[in-house]
Amino acid sequence: MRGVVLHAPGEIRVEDLPDPAVLEPGDAVLRLEATCVCGSDLWRYRGEDPFSTPQHMGHEYVGVVEEIGSSVHSLTPGDRVVGSFFASDNSCEICAAGYQSSCVHRQLMSGAQAQRLRVPLADGTLVVVGGTPDDAQLRGLLAASDVFGTGWFGARAAAVSPGKTVVVVGDGAVGLLGVLSARLQGAERIIAMSRHASRQQLALEFGATDIVAERGDEGIERVRDLTHGLGAHCVIEAVGTNEAMRQAFTLTRPGGHLGFVGVSHGVSFEGRELFMSHVHLHGGPAPVRDYLPELITRIMANEINPGRVFDLDLPLDGAAEAYRAMDERTAIKVMLRP
Amino acid sequence: MRGVVLHAPGEIRVEDLPDPAVLEPGDAVLRLEATCVCGSDLWRYRGEDPFSTPQHMGHEYVGVVEEIGSSVHSLTPGDRVVGSFFASDNSCEICAAGYQSSCVHRQLMSGAQAQRLRVPLADGTLVVVGGTPDDAQLRGLLAASDVFGTGWFGARAAAVSPGKTVVVVGDGAVGLLGVLSARLQGAERIIAMSRHASRQQLALEFGATDIVAERGDEGIERVRDLTHGLGAHCVIEAVGTNEAMRQAFTLTRPGGHLGFVGVSHGVSFEGRELFMSHVHLHGGPAPVRDYLPELITRIMANEINPGRVFDLDLPLDGAAEAYRAMDERTAIKVMLRP
Repeated sequence: MRGVVLHAPGEIRVEDLPDPAVLEPGDAVLRLEATCVCGSDLWRYRGEDPFSTPQHMGHEYVGVVEEIGSSVHSLTPGDRVVGSFFASDNSCEICAAGYQSSCVHRQLMSGAQAQRLRVPLADGTLVVVGGTPDDAQLRGLLAASDVFGTGWFGARAAAVSPGKTVVVVGDGAVGLLGVLSARLQGAERIIAMSRHASRQQLALEFGATDIVAERGDEGIERVRDLTHGLGAHCVIEAVGTNEAMRQAFTLTRPGGHLGFVGVSHGVSFEGRELFMSHVHLHGGPAPVRDYLPELITRIMANEINPGRVFDLDLPLDGAAEAYRAMDERTAIKVMLRP
Repeated sequence: MRGVVLHAPGEIRVEDLPDPAVLEPGDAVLRLEATCVCGSDLWRYRGEDPFSTPQHMGHEYVGVVEEIGSSVHSLTPGDRVVGSFFASDNSCEICAAGYQSSCVHRQLMSGAQAQRLRVPLADGTLVVVGGTPDDAQLRGLLAASDVFGTGWFGARAAAVSPGKTVVVVGDGAVGLLGVLSARLQGAERIIAMSRHASRQQLALEFGATDIVAERGDEGIERVRDLTHGLGAHCVIEAVGTNEAMRQAFTLTRPGGHLGFVGVSHGVSFEGRELFMSHVHLHGGPAPVRDYLPELITRIMANEINPGRVFDLDLPLDGAAEAYRAMDERTAIKVMLRP
């Protein structure tokens, strides 16, 4: 099969790789219909997360079950499924509490930018899609696999609920879908921080009520003006840099909630500032598995269109161009068709 | 009047000070019936929080209103009242959300280790006690003024609820009352970490189901054994040192809640460890004002006896001995009678 390999920072190649096979009784092998490049892939692509061996990239996928291991009981070959970036048993105490991405048996997925994918713990990890998705729905399902599930968790971690004012820091796919998630979770006012016209436009389509284009201290002042000088009840951080985390933290009012879903890089906090802030802090790798059933249902009912974040389509063999477009921010999110 | 002044680390004197007076229309002046020494006073006493001018100590108090300013409308001279360590208007958006200790008009209280005390924002800050407290109730009310309210907030910040397993790190008055608070908030299992027999005994009286006397890695192992290897749902941190915060953080399971109410000293966190932990983090100066009505009612109904933490009584003039006893941990908490 064909698959995407990162050999060194900036060096993406699409290569002939061995087809994956069932290795454990709980495995499934999928033929992938859609995959994509994640903002978090860029840390390695840019050389900011070092690695020493070639990286089989990708952890977002929609596909059809081709083969199952002997212990898999909830799936049948031919089922169309969505999974996410951690395989999980979906039955341990941690999963039962809604934290499948910290499952005691979790396995980090990779290699989904390819034609086929082995998924361990398939019963716990994969969710079957009812019906046949059209193209917009397929894009939505692919978004649910990570960026929508992550935006959804950001909004949950930020304790979004009816009547709340929400700030979203970050206008990548996760930030934009954080806007959509905040709207679906009942936020009254959603302030999206973005300087890019096309992203501002999508934020408004997803339900943002205000756009703040200013950055740094000026952006903070603008949000303060919009929130009685107090900061927001709920802030979703969807970048991961220290600058973005600082901004998000500063914009959360005392007693408010900061949900952080950007993979942290170079962020640190003093205990005293956490203590004096009265901010609730929660985040991490999203337990996408917990949200997939609801998100899939809403997507297949055409209630929402999260796949709008994919603004560039390429065949799998165009992966190098896909990474470039993500890196240079000429695309919000690039879909790859295996 | 007589009042306690810290002149230099370790140097407590009880002195003749000018009587406080109403300075602002919203002020009340109280004649104090009970006050005490706080664990947080020890940071300055031990020289760990530097200061340059003599410190009028104390922020815990039960007293009787002697005089009120022209705008005070909810109090009458003769009322018995309890307040806490922040004066607050109890009407701003932040107060309305239950964070009076971050009130937009908050004023940090001091000088309560004295015979009289000026309380600003008296309408928002002071809560009237119905009925005449007996000695045990008076001790309970004094505990509610800070350490019980702080333990209560610790349990709330740790999201204690029925069925949960709670760990309490710290066996000072706040930690012990964190145990009582966790019980009242419905915890199923309460693990108190303490090496001191008398404190273990009080923890059990307050509702602890398990005592862990081991410290450091051994203590962590013991708690893991008691929690299916996963850590606790809820952890209350009531010390403030980096060691205690690390221990508390490590003992919180993924998706669990860490409520930290020890004043942070030398604590820091990397963003990446917060991200990977899936721990909810919340804490800070307790909004005691929010809890006073409920705590006072329960105390005056003899439902609970939080005043049990006071294991040494001294007259105000014995303040130097009180600080010594707290510093050397020969007393859990010392009551001063003005």
